Amino acid sequence: MFLVVKNVLTAAEVDQIRQIAKSLRFVEGRASNPHNLAKDNLQVDTSQPDAVRAANIAAAAISRNEQITNFVFPKRIAAPLLARYEPGMKYGAHADAPFIPLPSGPLRSDVSGTIWIADPSTYEGGELTIHLGSERISIKGEPGAMVVYPSTTLHEVTPVTSGQRLVLITFIESAIPDQAERELLYSLNEVHALEGLKMGWENRTRLQFVIASLHRKWAR
Amino acid sequence: MFLVVKNVLTAAEVDQIRQIAKSLRFVEGRASNPHNLAKDNLQVDTSQPDAVRAANIAAAAISRNEQITNFVFPKRIAAPLLARYEPGMKYGAHADAPFIPLPSGPLRSDVSGTIWIADPSTYEGGELTIHLGSERISIKGEPGAMVVYPSTTLHEVTPVTSGQRLVLITFIESAIPDQAERELLYSLNEVHALEGLKMGWENRTRLQFVIASLHRKWAR
Amino acid sequence: MFLVVKNVLTAAEVDQIRQIAKSLRFVEGRASNPHNLAKDNLQVDTSQPDAVRAANIAAAAISRNEQITNFVFPKRIAAPLLARYEPGMKYGAHADAPFIPLPSGPLRSDVSGTIWIADPSTYEGGELTIHLGSERISIKGEPGAMVVYPSTTLHEVTPVTSGQRLVLITFIESAIPDQAERELLYSLNEVHALEGLKMGWENRTRLQFVIASLHRKWAR
Amino acid sequence: MFLVVKNVLTAAEVDQIRQIAKSLRFVEGRASNPHNLAKDNLQVDTSQPDAVRAANIAAAAISRNEQITNFVFPKRIAAPLLARYEPGMKYGAHADAPFIPLPSGPLRSDVSGTIWIADPSTYEGGELTIHLGSERISIKGEPGAMVVYPSTTLHEVTPVTSGQRLVLITFIESAIPDQAERELLYSLNEVHALEGLKMGWENRTRLQFVIASLHRKWAR
Amino acid sequence: MFLVVKNVLTAAEVDQIRQIAKSLRFVEGRASNPHNLAKDNLQVDTSQPDAVRAANIAAAAISRNEQITNFVFPKRIAAPLLARYEPGMKYGAHADAPFIPLPSGPLRSDVSGTIWIADPSTYEGGELTIHLGSERISIKGEPGAMVVYPSTTLHEVTPVTSGQRLVLITFIESAIPDQAERELLYSLNEVHALEGLKMGWENRTRLQFVIASLHRKWAR
Amino acid sequence: MFLVVKNVLTAAEVDQIRQIAKSLRFVEGRASNPHNLAKDNLQVDTSQPDAVRAANIAAAAISRNEQITNFVFPKRIAAPLLARYEPGMKYGAHADAPFIPLPSGPLRSDVSGTIWIADPSTYEGGELTIHLGSERISIKGEPGAMVVYPSTTLHEVTPVTSGQRLVLITFIESAIPDQAERELLYSLNEVHALEGLKMGWENRTRLQFVIASLHRKWAR
Repeated sequence: MFLVVKNVLTAAEVDQIRQIAKSLRFVEGRASNPHNLAKDNLQVDTSQPDAVRAANIAAAAISRNEQITNFVFPKRIAAPLLARYEPGMKYGAHADAPFIPLPSGPLRSDVSGTIWIADPSTYEGGELTIHLGSERISIKGEPGAMVVYPSTTLHEVTPVTSGQRLVLITFIESAIPDQAERELLYSLNEVHALEGLKMGWENRTRLQFVIASLHRKWAR
Repeated sequence: MFLVVKNVLTAAEVDQIRQIAKSLRFVEGRASNPHNLAKDNLQVDTSQPDAVRAANIAAAAISRNEQITNFVFPKRIAAPLLARYEPGMKYGAHADAPFIPLPSGPLRSDVSGTIWIADPSTYEGGELTIHLGSERISIKGEPGAMVVYPSTTLHEVTPVTSGQRLVLITFIESAIPDQAERELLYSLNEVHALEGLKMGWENRTRLQFVIASLHRKWAR
Repeated sequence: MFLVVKNVLTAAEVDQIRQIAKSLRFVEGRASNPHNLAKDNLQVDTSQPDAVRAANIAAAAISRNEQITNFVFPKRIAAPLLARYEPGMKYGAHADAPFIPLPSGPLRSDVSGTIWIADPSTYEGGELTIHLGSERISIKGEPGAMVVYPSTTLHEVTPVTSGQRLVLITFIESAIPDQAERELLYSLNEVHALEGLKMGWENRTRLQFVIASLHRKWAR
Repeated sequence: MFLVVKNVLTAAEVDQIRQIAKSLRFVEGRASNPHNLAKDNLQVDTSQPDAVRAANIAAAAISRNEQITNFVFPKRIAAPLLARYEPGMKYGAHADAPFIPLPSGPLRSDVSGTIWIADPSTYEGGELTIHLGSERISIKGEPGAMVVYPSTTLHEVTPVTSGQRLVLITFIESAIPDQAERELLYSLNEVHALEGLKMGWENRTRLQFVIASLHRKWAR
Repeated sequence: MFLVVKNVLTAAEVDQIRQIAKSLRFVEGRASNPHNLAKDNLQVDTSQPDAVRAANIAAAAISRNEQITNFVFPKRIAAPLLARYEPGMKYGAHADAPFIPLPSGPLRSDVSGTIWIADPSTYEGGELTIHLGSERISIKGEPGAMVVYPSTTLHEVTPVTSGQRLVLITFIESAIPDQAERELLYSLNEVHALEGLKMGWENRTRLQFVIASLHRKWAR
Repeated sequence: MFLVVKNVLTAAEVDQIRQIAKSLRFVEGRASNPHNLAKDNLQVDTSQPDAVRAANIAAAAISRNEQITNFVFPKRIAAPLLARYEPGMKYGAHADAPFIPLPSGPLRSDVSGTIWIADPSTYEGGELTIHLGSERISIKGEPGAMVVYPSTTLHEVTPVTSGQRLVLITFIESAIPDQAERELLYSLNEVHALEGLKMGWENRTRLQFVIASLHRKWAR
């Protein structure tokens, strides 16, 4: 399951991050995955205080977003990282590493996320393309929009052919790590939120009983 | 979870089975569980054609009952067996065997069932008592009523102190063998049956999606 | 599975909590579950130091009780909370929330517990009633007694018709979250504790091997 | 995961089925799902011998196709059914029923399949659209092509606006019912088929050991 | 877990099978696994009636053996197959295929078995060697003895350096497919068989309750 | 699965630990398992600073060893403990306790480990013998070597008949607690490490996708 949410960052926050990004030093993305031959992009050098500032703005925006929170059941969110693709750059099809080393202990990457900063009209190519067997989903979002998708999928960023693709990427550990179970629990929560108060009391209670039981059963 | 359903057998069927039972030969119940020292009752000798006839009447009644069908998700039902408890007889606390040998292959006993034939006013004692840790549920049903309960519980028939307890017992293999999962699926089906048509189309579809997915996932 | 244990609190501790409760401020129970229309009771305002003192007395009593510890495999215990039901008050059937927010992180409510403080002879109604399909278990304990039961059940407190029901309630996260698995492991531990030393050495070792393997397998 | 395979039916078989379809009687699709308000199409009346003949041609074609067999791990395949959408017809978003009643017993629908018979240039609309959260995959195949996709997805056929959409649909019970596990096993089998003979003997054996173990573990 | 059982075949049956084997035609073992480069032995041509006769003798012997039955929980047993290793022959390390095609449907190979026919003093080499990481278990049994071991292990037959190794091999589908779960259930059954009658009635019932519940839970 | 790794401790570290051990006080091993009648050995009194020093040397050696790390997926390692067996001492067959109390919280013992300090030529008996049904694996390693094996096995130390057996023992909590799953993931990682770069890019990516997905799925 995929969810694209608009305006996770406000226009002001997008501007702020663009300004910060201009003055930041970027390094080869492969630095953090030296053996990943598919990766050809630039990532911010996270030792710079302003990189941390940009990450904090984005992390706060994700945490306050109810649509994402309801969909992802986030437990921990890795600091969003600025990534830049110049013309010719790309990130070939890959599955994300299962665990991201963090100071607070390894974070299981259940859900991957991209927040778009650059305006899609300013660069060509650079689509986030998710492989689903023989089919593909390609997404190129508006500034401030965010997509979340299962880290278990094969996905790629197609080559940028002109302009510059600037995004923030992150990884989220979910309280409900299995993607299919997370989708079921999300769906029941939606039914409860939208129909619960119209139901008879006994059926609303039944639905709450099922939701609570599945939540306990599937949480890890 | 327990379900007591009244009038699974009609009054006429109860009478019919009472008449049949009068002419049938009963043997020691321990014959079918020689090592079970807790068992002290009488069971019908199933080699008699009329025993089969009584079983068929009861099996048909169970199969046509929607409440039981919705609650149990039956896959196979063992031929109901007439059992009789004379004064002093009982069946001490026990868990039912996990598999019942049948000509068509072993039946996994997920759900146990009792149909009462004798009128509760005609005998004392003989309650079906289910142990749940330090607590107990005791049930003594009307003629034609049926109780279904998880075969995994410890349960007993308390001593009959006067009169005669006549019942049919059976074991059901469920399409959803896990008791907790069966209860969740049953509850969602109830919500769908009672609230589905009042919901918006999108939410009804969501609920159906969850029900179908859980049914597939948990069926064995 | 349910377990009622007497004298979890000593008579002196019961008295102490009664005295404390007299001087404490209670607020509407719905404050902590604003959307729960079924809830109509009073809960202690936990910002009062004496509320914490009462909670600590009860928490220590639970932790030292071997019967409860063996039965529940507790990992974390939420601070017990004083609740009071005046005439007319009740808590309709509900399932407990799957996670309780605590300063140390969300606690998964696997097992719910009630400790009775008021004497059952001083109030009418106010029974803890657990729904198991069409059947019910109703419990009204002695002062100092505690019942633990799966948080996954639907349960209610029936209306108090006279007097005052004073109890402490708590939620426990178990090392063995699945209720059926917890019951199996508890049962094997009982067999080992009561029969282990009478067994031949090889069979005792076998039983320990099974217990250790199931404990590892099911712990979360 | 989705797989579109071209030429599952040969051109001759497509022609043959088109000819057969012309003389067959179609009935309202809702006949087989009376409560499904989303369904508005026509289905062949399967009591006609020629409907069986068309189904057999398609079933044989599916069974002989290695790509589909490797991808789906089929255990049982429901008789493919001719469906026709006239202008204005559609099948709104729905999840397929978890079990399809068949004479040989209920078939668990793990994978759904569509074989296109009509040429896509002869009708407008009528796309098979699969919902994946906020994103969509839309497929409209060449005559003789087949798509297989998880029956657990929400999917729809968009309204036909001109021409006639003629397809065969089917449901497959997989030996590996869980979609994520099926994808993993399929991927390892691909690695083995394409790289196995180039590996050192010990590593090929290791890979075979893993494949055999996962196949046993996940098969149902 | 491994189990070597002596005298599964009586001395007379061993003789009978030796006599039958003398007149039977053997073919290259690779015939049944053409892609298995590790396999270099001879297998009986099963189209010969006497090959079936030998298989039946061995199958009956396995089925009547209580030690094996208790240990393996057999559901289906593949016809035992005569295999012969001449000097220089061997079967390199491999994992057995997960499913064996049989006329009655694919048999899941949970447990593999070897019955020794040749006397170990008449041939050198030809040990059944099971790999467990860096360690090995090597077994060379007496005529009529049988070893059963998990089909999931890597195992090999070391080269025969003189004489002739004659064995029967078979594959068993277990009612408890997971090897670790099967071992736990076997162990509890042993405790019950050897200690049950010495236990207090309540504890014996508890143990039976656990055994029945695990058997249901783990059976497939 | 078992893994014996040589030179986990360097010769210098072995010497260092021997020197330390000479001056340390040992107590009866049963002190830490008072109810374990099978245990008859000596363990270092861990309140001595030099016992901590020896433990630290061994813990660092284990952590830096890639073979062990790849095989065990260690999450937490209990402080290695010096144990000594004088002539006549032994540790009868037992399964290790599922959880080891540590100051940082209970450690689940998934993998047990022994590091040999004494030279095997200086003592007789004292083999680590692991029971696998009717078969046994016996291991007696060189100084500095370490064996890791599943804590779920029954294992024993056979009686020392002369000399002195000096070892360090430890328990490891694995990120992949299930022994069979850990073995599968380890095997795939080996295939990837040894064959990955020779594969086509697409197949290497597929293999990485499977490894990442299984790692996430099985980690606890």
